[in-house]
Amino acid sequence: MTASRSDSAEVGGRVAGAPEQRSSWGIDRPIGVAVLGMGNVGTEVVRILRDHADDLRSRVGAPVLLRGVAVRNLERDRGLPAELLTTDAEALVARADVDLVVEVMGGIDPARGLILAALNAGKSVISANKALLADYTGELAAAAERNRADLYFEAAVAGAIPVVRPLIQSLSGDRVNKVVGIVNGTTNFILSAMDETGADYGITLKEATRLGYAEADPTADVEGYDAASKAAILASLAFHTRVTAADVYREGISKITSEDLETASALDCTVKLLAICERIPGNPPAAEGGKDRISVRVYPALIPRKHPLAAVNGAFNAVVVEAENAGRLMFYGQGAGGAPTASAVLGDLVMAARNKFYGGRAPGESVYAELPIAPIGDTPARYHVNLQVEDIPGVLAKVAGEFANHGVSISTVRQAGHGEGARLVVVTHHALESALADTVAALAEMESVTSVTSVLRLEGTDE
Amino acid sequence: MTASRSDSAEVGGRVAGAPEQRSSWGIDRPIGVAVLGMGNVGTEVVRILRDHADDLRSRVGAPVLLRGVAVRNLERDRGLPAELLTTDAEALVARADVDLVVEVMGGIDPARGLILAALNAGKSVISANKALLADYTGELAAAAERNRADLYFEAAVAGAIPVVRPLIQSLSGDRVNKVVGIVNGTTNFILSAMDETGADYGITLKEATRLGYAEADPTADVEGYDAASKAAILASLAFHTRVTAADVYREGISKITSEDLETASALDCTVKLLAICERIPGNPPAAEGGKDRISVRVYPALIPRKHPLAAVNGAFNAVVVEAENAGRLMFYGQGAGGAPTASAVLGDLVMAARNKFYGGRAPGESVYAELPIAPIGDTPARYHVNLQVEDIPGVLAKVAGEFANHGVSISTVRQAGHGEGARLVVVTHHALESALADTVAALAEMESVTSVTSVLRLEGTDE
Repeated sequence: MTASRSDSAEVGGRVAGAPEQRSSWGIDRPIGVAVLGMGNVGTEVVRILRDHADDLRSRVGAPVLLRGVAVRNLERDRGLPAELLTTDAEALVARADVDLVVEVMGGIDPARGLILAALNAGKSVISANKALLADYTGELAAAAERNRADLYFEAAVAGAIPVVRPLIQSLSGDRVNKVVGIVNGTTNFILSAMDETGADYGITLKEATRLGYAEADPTADVEGYDAASKAAILASLAFHTRVTAADVYREGISKITSEDLETASALDCTVKLLAICERIPGNPPAAEGGKDRISVRVYPALIPRKHPLAAVNGAFNAVVVEAENAGRLMFYGQGAGGAPTASAVLGDLVMAARNKFYGGRAPGESVYAELPIAPIGDTPARYHVNLQVEDIPGVLAKVAGEFANHGVSISTVRQAGHGEGARLVVVTHHALESALADTVAALAEMESVTSVTSVLRLEGTDE
Repeated sequence: MTASRSDSAEVGGRVAGAPEQRSSWGIDRPIGVAVLGMGNVGTEVVRILRDHADDLRSRVGAPVLLRGVAVRNLERDRGLPAELLTTDAEALVARADVDLVVEVMGGIDPARGLILAALNAGKSVISANKALLADYTGELAAAAERNRADLYFEAAVAGAIPVVRPLIQSLSGDRVNKVVGIVNGTTNFILSAMDETGADYGITLKEATRLGYAEADPTADVEGYDAASKAAILASLAFHTRVTAADVYREGISKITSEDLETASALDCTVKLLAICERIPGNPPAAEGGKDRISVRVYPALIPRKHPLAAVNGAFNAVVVEAENAGRLMFYGQGAGGAPTASAVLGDLVMAARNKFYGGRAPGESVYAELPIAPIGDTPARYHVNLQVEDIPGVLAKVAGEFANHGVSISTVRQAGHGEGARLVVVTHHALESALADTVAALAEMESVTSVTSVLRLEGTDE
């Protein structure tokens, strides 16, 4: 809605009988875009802005013009006219002819300050920066709200896959109970390869690095930090509660061994690094005054091969959402890469540009529910526990007794091997993390248990 | 944006430094909702509006109040206060305290007139009516545009699965090349059951009717009319071109036999009723002045069992979208049923209510591309042709020659059976529908061909 319309009769948020002037005030006001960062994603964003200018103009209702790109190094040839490139991101953001800012530089600073500057000047922002959004969405969304600007970030989670918008909009009339996602391509590539080749973690990581699927310093990916940022964003949206990366329980994949993958295979499972956002029903239930809590966690877990997430291999991502009325939904696609991520950025950009043009607004942050975050100890999960035991009669009963002592219910127990290779493989029903930890500690002390070889969580079963 | 804000300083569609008054003008202006129709979906919409009133209020920023429900029969006990029920839908829509109209009655009339009346009064509309939207979106969207009201219809395609919003918004900066969906639960239930049990179509349809998966008159589902409506909607959104049901080439599943399923199994395929929306690149390409065309079609086809759509069984739906930059995306979930469809309706309702409240606007119809629709004869597909032949030397060469005569390239040909049961099974590369039809006509005339037993299309292969 522009100044020319501010005198029209509006009643209760609704324009009564206002004449349609869209085409007359649309065509000649271009929307100016600044792009911050020209890595894989920024390069693709710039390419699409230039190659598809006609389509974008038709979809927005006005020309979308690239005003400039902030880069660190002006020397590199980027195939762009020199006047479009600048190292002064601050000045670019402040330009009067810039309406939208695309932040694809990553990292907390200076991205945070630049985004705030843009929002405070009433400019809408599209960001793909998961680390920043996981921790600063509150601050950024408040700035957007104050200045009636939009903050969009579809590209921050799962690349091209629409999952942020479905959670914010499509499921806004439903109650989400669980989100389980494979949201990190590097770890999924490594685990898929380990599953396929039987190779160990170290060798597979090296191969992933060689092929460009892992960075030189792979810590953020393999230790689950990247997935934890995304889990925080997903949980915030799913549960209308502010969740930051520090709230996310996190274990990476660097301790996963080829033996774990073998164990998984024997159970007709595979191992995936999962981001899990879960509503833990209040006791008493919410209707009787209890309050639901939420659990947000990232860890490798066994999932049955017949589960849809088990088929998500290589650099692909997928997110399963379970909601009270919608039931189980799954979203699948390319979770990273320049062009797929740019597709998500451009979708947001068209929406933000349309809003500038037609006077619309993106939905703001919704954190009214303020659900408390349950500690990992209170989180229920199923477990697969592998024990090396002495090959003597009664050991199974003793081990089972120890699980019972800690209130952990056993689903199946299987004896394998003989003599020095004798093993017990226990699969539990849902148990609290704390009860399982106590059980494992007690098992390790038992005389007839040589060692607790592995403890793996089990997800995606119906029980 | 309300009357109280119409004097704020706005520049080029952007409010510069407007004070944040959101919470002060939000709380006390309820949003009134009318629901038209109280079948499976309407009942669930009403339940959620009442059960989740607190959540909805928090998410919209204002109370969302059910003003009334239009039904055909007031006698039936619906567990609602009598004053909420009316048979006068027109008067309900016209009520001054109704801001949003949810149309879940289905059918063209009176739904069309009621929706137009609502939009013309500046009220936003949420509809789940695929048949209406497939043919009248142009008229309805124009009325919405004229009156600055919103028209939302996520629930019209694939129930709870967000696919309308992703196509309109998330992919608005990308170029969609293909959409392939399983969008009809009844036919998918029947085909899944035929695949599993080996039973014939008639028996399986009866069972589906008994279980409530098929209606007493199953024509709209089994003959593909329902899927064609959804295909028209998907194609309109994907290609920014107005496509109506009459533009969709349509074949149903009533001629699929248990032999077809057997044939499919032998090829490690299954049979699915697919809605296919495809961009056919211009020749010369668009960049050199040619114009892309689109093909929109619904028919049963073989797809490889390893294709993600092959695993979509029973009443589930899934939609695969291929876009230039996003790559291949898949959306999966419950495609029908009261609660899942109501989830989609409520998501739209929250967005429409927020727009009323904050002055936002839903994206309008986008049909600028006006791509021509290719006749089915010009549509490329792969084919599986099953022939009963005389068991004599040279018949394979003769048959292969007939394909070549019509410019249809063969991928594989297999001889099976002997004597009177001798068969040839031919799988083609991509060929035009018209060329294949000519080939089949010529084969039927050949002396050594006893009969053309079946012609099935093959989708979801990489070639």
